[in-house]
Amino acid sequence: MKRRQFLTAAGVGAAASAVAMPAVAQSMPEMRWRLSSGFPKSLDTLYGAGETFAKYVAEMTDNKFQIQAFGAGEIVGTFQALDAVSNGTVECAHTASYYYVGKDPTFAIPCAIPFGLNARQMNAWMYHGGGMDLANEFYAKHGLFALPAGNTGTQMGGWFRKEIKTVDDLKGVKMRIAGIAGQVMAKLGVVPQQLAGGDIYPALERGTIDSAEWVGPYDDEKLGFVKVAPYYYYPGWWEGGPMFHVYFNQQKWNDLPKLYKDICMSAAAHANVDAQAKYDARNPAALRRLVSAGAQLRPFSPELMEAAYKAANELYDELSAKSADWKKLYESMRAFRNEEYLWFQVAEYTYDNFMIRARARG
Amino acid sequence: MKRRQFLTAAGVGAAASAVAMPAVAQSMPEMRWRLSSGFPKSLDTLYGAGETFAKYVAEMTDNKFQIQAFGAGEIVGTFQALDAVSNGTVECAHTASYYYVGKDPTFAIPCAIPFGLNARQMNAWMYHGGGMDLANEFYAKHGLFALPAGNTGTQMGGWFRKEIKTVDDLKGVKMRIAGIAGQVMAKLGVVPQQLAGGDIYPALERGTIDSAEWVGPYDDEKLGFVKVAPYYYYPGWWEGGPMFHVYFNQQKWNDLPKLYKDICMSAAAHANVDAQAKYDARNPAALRRLVSAGAQLRPFSPELMEAAYKAANELYDELSAKSADWKKLYESMRAFRNEEYLWFQVAEYTYDNFMIRARARG
Repeated sequence: MKRRQFLTAAGVGAAASAVAMPAVAQSMPEMRWRLSSGFPKSLDTLYGAGETFAKYVAEMTDNKFQIQAFGAGEIVGTFQALDAVSNGTVECAHTASYYYVGKDPTFAIPCAIPFGLNARQMNAWMYHGGGMDLANEFYAKHGLFALPAGNTGTQMGGWFRKEIKTVDDLKGVKMRIAGIAGQVMAKLGVVPQQLAGGDIYPALERGTIDSAEWVGPYDDEKLGFVKVAPYYYYPGWWEGGPMFHVYFNQQKWNDLPKLYKDICMSAAAHANVDAQAKYDARNPAALRRLVSAGAQLRPFSPELMEAAYKAANELYDELSAKSADWKKLYESMRAFRNEEYLWFQVAEYTYDNFMIRARARG
Repeated sequence: MKRRQFLTAAGVGAAASAVAMPAVAQSMPEMRWRLSSGFPKSLDTLYGAGETFAKYVAEMTDNKFQIQAFGAGEIVGTFQALDAVSNGTVECAHTASYYYVGKDPTFAIPCAIPFGLNARQMNAWMYHGGGMDLANEFYAKHGLFALPAGNTGTQMGGWFRKEIKTVDDLKGVKMRIAGIAGQVMAKLGVVPQQLAGGDIYPALERGTIDSAEWVGPYDDEKLGFVKVAPYYYYPGWWEGGPMFHVYFNQQKWNDLPKLYKDICMSAAAHANVDAQAKYDARNPAALRRLVSAGAQLRPFSPELMEAAYKAANELYDELSAKSADWKKLYESMRAFRNEEYLWFQVAEYTYDNFMIRARARG
């Protein structure tokens, strides 16, 4: 072979491989990102959903795109997670949007507001009811892009040192409850308190606070509230189906190769269904253990639920008058919710109703 | 540059790219598979979930792994889909396992049996309650491997030409209902009929059959039953949360690169949550339209539900005595269900109960 022939042949070969190979290599660049969780590593459920998302992304990219998860406080604290994403300190976060109502109350809606959607309805609104687009239109104003990534299902209504039989019994109760739910509770006479997870137990024990809400049986058990505030109320009417999201710095999201965007979307959806399944699988045994340990299960009275519903709707009217963003998301969610319950009350609810009664009879 | 130097340099370059590039190329081979759906293309919900799975896989592999979806009857019919996967006619299928009870009644359990799990509980059992492993241990005997990929939520109880007020009213009713549900109905006096989707309407119109069950508002509306059998009963106690799966030929699944297995798992989970969300988003408006078109909504009476529950449990005892596979899956599902409803009756159910009543008051 003459040298020129060789060069030409090599050139052809290079051109051919340039067509076949770099297409994959270019679309799968090596990337290292950091994810700041809004939750401590001790919560294998909530923190776990963000970690699971990162694991799926790594697995689906042959470890080309690695996202390292950090617990709340390791890089920034829970309440700084979204700012850290906006300003590029970290590329992404996994957290609950309602932690950021201090920036704007509208942040609560894609996660949970009192008397909002249940978990399945939240998925329906997000994926097929326009919720995700509306939420991202709002998040874009804060330099963020979000994907659903987890839900707890309806939470419990929290732990109380004394029984709460009437709305009057709530007056002056110092309760660890935050955000929009805290504002509704305040309308009922509660004195809302903001405390980090680790500070709740000693405050309840000393009587500095009278009550605390956290999540549900599996997570609550870890904090030991049953020993100091045994009345365990339900339902958590302020968290019918709280949804967590993975938040991306919007510019960094936009700059991702399309392949990685597609992988992130399925990884987040997988983490979303997986997290709910984990809660549903682990809560029953935790509930049994809590009752054995002395938890006194109590439903909130119909009178209290009605008063809270009325107070919530008053607050929503006030917020709608003040904020176009709130109004837009809230009205979409509310209309969707009313349609959802029209349907859920028929087949879904009557099925569960029968199954619950059949189980109770043994 | 001398020729030998050039050759050496080229060789080094080739070796270097052999390290960097083929790792991706080898783990992402070009593959073309076929998926046979158990559902006709006219059902954008059920057929759509299989197609969505295939779309996610293609997107996440830069179109290297392409799975083409075919409607029921295009390659093989609904009831041949799993055999076609086992024998390698197609590599995979998306269908409802309970269509294959003719092969073995155990096939029903990972999809739905009367008075089984609701949709969220089904996810919990599959992903975190041991259900998926147990199901795949059984499917392996048929050369299959399955991943959850869709759910309808609790279905409706079907359309009847006449009102069914008592168990006696069911005697002699010719109802289009198949599988385990048909066997339970037979114990109540129903004469179960097997008819393909397209044959149901004319049979109801002529009075050859008296009743037919299909899915729920969104899918049922398409078949026009409201015109010929207006009594629309609920809940479909034989389908509390029917789950669909993607079925893979077991050998072909085993031979997939790990990267493609990981991608299939998240694609299926994404299709799973997406399909339920689509149903939940579309059913309410369809229900409204059906009621406007004359559908008479009726709950099955408590007496009928109790009789069906008793008949189902009798059948399950018979099947457990006959089949070790049935017994193993059924007992896992039943134990899981009883724990799930212990928990669901507390926060989840009381929340929905309040929201349904609040909505009804306006």
